[in-house]
Amino acid sequence: MKRMNRKKIREILNQNKEEAEILVMGWVRTRRDSKGGFSFLEINDGSCLKNLQVIVDHNIDSFELNSGKLHTGSCARVIGKLVQSPGKGQSVELQAKIVEVYGEADPDHYPLQKKHHSFEFLREIAHLRPRTNTFGAVMRVRNRLSYSIHNFFQERGFLYLHTPIITTNDCEGAGEMFQVTTLNSDTLRAKDGEVDYSQDFFGEKTGLTVSGQLEGEVYAMALSEIYTFGPTFRAENSNTSRHLSEFWMVEPEMAFYDLEDDMNLAENFLRYLFKDILEQCPEDLEFFNKQFDKTILERHQGVVDYKFERISYSDAIKLLQKSNKNFTYPVKWGSNLQSEHERYISEDVFKKPVIIYDYPDKIKPFYMKCNNDGKTVRAMDVILPKLGEIIGGSQREDDYNVLIKRMEAKNLNPDDYHWYLDLRRFGSAPHAGFGLGFERLVQFVTGMENIRDVIPFPRTPKNARF
Amino acid sequence: MKRMNRKKIREILNQNKEEAEILVMGWVRTRRDSKGGFSFLEINDGSCLKNLQVIVDHNIDSFELNSGKLHTGSCARVIGKLVQSPGKGQSVELQAKIVEVYGEADPDHYPLQKKHHSFEFLREIAHLRPRTNTFGAVMRVRNRLSYSIHNFFQERGFLYLHTPIITTNDCEGAGEMFQVTTLNSDTLRAKDGEVDYSQDFFGEKTGLTVSGQLEGEVYAMALSEIYTFGPTFRAENSNTSRHLSEFWMVEPEMAFYDLEDDMNLAENFLRYLFKDILEQCPEDLEFFNKQFDKTILERHQGVVDYKFERISYSDAIKLLQKSNKNFTYPVKWGSNLQSEHERYISEDVFKKPVIIYDYPDKIKPFYMKCNNDGKTVRAMDVILPKLGEIIGGSQREDDYNVLIKRMEAKNLNPDDYHWYLDLRRFGSAPHAGFGLGFERLVQFVTGMENIRDVIPFPRTPKNARF
Repeated sequence: MKRMNRKKIREILNQNKEEAEILVMGWVRTRRDSKGGFSFLEINDGSCLKNLQVIVDHNIDSFELNSGKLHTGSCARVIGKLVQSPGKGQSVELQAKIVEVYGEADPDHYPLQKKHHSFEFLREIAHLRPRTNTFGAVMRVRNRLSYSIHNFFQERGFLYLHTPIITTNDCEGAGEMFQVTTLNSDTLRAKDGEVDYSQDFFGEKTGLTVSGQLEGEVYAMALSEIYTFGPTFRAENSNTSRHLSEFWMVEPEMAFYDLEDDMNLAENFLRYLFKDILEQCPEDLEFFNKQFDKTILERHQGVVDYKFERISYSDAIKLLQKSNKNFTYPVKWGSNLQSEHERYISEDVFKKPVIIYDYPDKIKPFYMKCNNDGKTVRAMDVILPKLGEIIGGSQREDDYNVLIKRMEAKNLNPDDYHWYLDLRRFGSAPHAGFGLGFERLVQFVTGMENIRDVIPFPRTPKNARF
Repeated sequence: MKRMNRKKIREILNQNKEEAEILVMGWVRTRRDSKGGFSFLEINDGSCLKNLQVIVDHNIDSFELNSGKLHTGSCARVIGKLVQSPGKGQSVELQAKIVEVYGEADPDHYPLQKKHHSFEFLREIAHLRPRTNTFGAVMRVRNRLSYSIHNFFQERGFLYLHTPIITTNDCEGAGEMFQVTTLNSDTLRAKDGEVDYSQDFFGEKTGLTVSGQLEGEVYAMALSEIYTFGPTFRAENSNTSRHLSEFWMVEPEMAFYDLEDDMNLAENFLRYLFKDILEQCPEDLEFFNKQFDKTILERHQGVVDYKFERISYSDAIKLLQKSNKNFTYPVKWGSNLQSEHERYISEDVFKKPVIIYDYPDKIKPFYMKCNNDGKTVRAMDVILPKLGEIIGGSQREDDYNVLIKRMEAKNLNPDDYHWYLDLRRFGSAPHAGFGLGFERLVQFVTGMENIRDVIPFPRTPKNARF
């Protein structure tokens, strides 16, 4: 076959005009044969949700040779004439001049036949599930959100920072850590039954990072505004639809920002992402809206349109206490807000995104800046209706002495944080930052119920396959 | 002090026009006092290489209170009038109305005083080195290259894919792997002295990925064109200026591409990156050109201007054999090309970037597509003058039976790759891809000699600090 450039299906469907000869490659989603001597193929190449309809006249030369191989899942190569389609719901269709099957997909063995497959089943064949409508759409949305995150920060002069994955610090025990080692079982145990980490690859005990924040602060204190976007890890044995052992986080960190600046940035960030995804992925979002959750489009537009409500933790507690709602968890100043509390505030009271700020110091990590009241810190959480917390952040404690006291109060050893403390010893600046769990965002945007279905290859307890 | 928006120094120096009142925050790089009752501060906020000159009249109110704290490294906040500068080499300067020091930097302890610091020393204080000219410039260039990589692929409709970090497959032993575990020393050893991985977090032995290629192929075989950009790992005990234990890789993978398409993409990719970095980071690149390597700007322009030479491995061997050069490693068909060979070809013979293709199958991995000659595979390496290999890629073997044979010839067990083989069983398509080591690119672009100096926190044998 002569060398010509393939045209992507997204481009073909968008151009919506006839063309004498084009080349299309993709995978057959369905085949239907008419009595009149034609086959109708639906071809998909992943560039968009929609398929291209290809009409194959059984009289063309290549049909006989390839017909037996043209099944659901086969890889096909079609040269043909693009014409306006008389059919409903499609703009153009391709009249094949040549059809060739590159790789077959034996119907007796190919698992993705045209019928309903449960997400549980598709997780078992995670190497084939991107060939379905749902997972193609999820991955296109995931891609666009990723790019949009970069665009947002780059437009504002933030520098993208790669913080280390392998680390010796545990960001104040934000979660259980995976250990990284090259010691084998023979050398792991030294004479006293203690492990001799001086023999390990890095000469000390190392694990997988739970957050890039502390390292992000290092660079914010030199380059002003940075963001990370990388993988983080939790070795918690949580088998839920909201937990992954490996997930991606976005963590901006900014010098010269106070808590208000931090909240403004977080609000503008989310608004930007939702506006962009509505504009860039309308077809995929409509699919989710139709298929899984009819409120998706409306909710996303709400994030774009409404100014977020801002309320202090103390006021939120008062609201909850006078609500007369029967919460599972008691409402008490000093306790963590549970998902039911957050959702009541954003869904029932304000009916829009809410930022809750100034949390009790006892329930927040050591690095958050103390307020003058002696009992709260400059923390903030952004709550979205139907999801709950999507962003958590704070102004950071920039006073060396206060920070040491906070570490001691949390039973941390300041010596373990000498370099972090140096940021306050030398040229300390007010600064703030936040973190966004990327998969939770993709979950919210797509409406997918299980977080394992918004990441290409999920890692969860007892599962690191593929 | 009243709430006003800080202006970034990059913006101030670019605007080059007077302004009645602006707020600047940053860190003092130097201070010089004149006999006439003025202090001259050089302030940097990381937004660009250049400092802003601030002139402080000793008669302003805030001077006396803050003067004792205005040292190299202090964090300062200045409100003043921006005026045209009479001084050479600077467009504007700031006449301070108010100067405040937020965080001091005690000259007796702050290690970054104005003098020469070796890169070895700066690696010891990796949490402070971003405050130097060199590391600020490296990180701005690194940031721009990262963004440019995303732009290149996004403009072409490639989807950004996050492949897993924790994995049970080893990409045919591309390198030594780190083990990831939650077993502690007590539970690691089961009764027979064998480790019982069924007790480990993922229920089997897991490690840190050495490449996302195989998973990338999964998504290319559904969505056509994808790219990864994420961390990868090598547990090799290599203490050189070119090796890191943790580094970032870019790996595009494309269905419907043959080797020629693959080479075209790689060439366009590099040309795009170099053109963009010359346009976007001229100040930082001029700094490197002046400071470290006077040929940088010329070489980068060369990547943009010259069509890459393409030559087969067999022809490259012939060229080397008739060169009469005294190579350390012998030149023989079937052996790997060494750095000296690659550099001879790109620097001495062609004096520009070269792509070498069709390598002997014996020296290349199982997944590369076999040529009909029965002895070479459709591999390609892109060689840059002065650096050597920057990109390695291939068309992938898409024939199920050939792939099995290749695995067996390389002593791999096809059962371990059942899902990878499924990509050839069901809807196989011609496809290709390549990998680019991101830190090697940053090294080449900046001219930094040691790869540890182009990543924020390098991980190398015996070092995972910060």
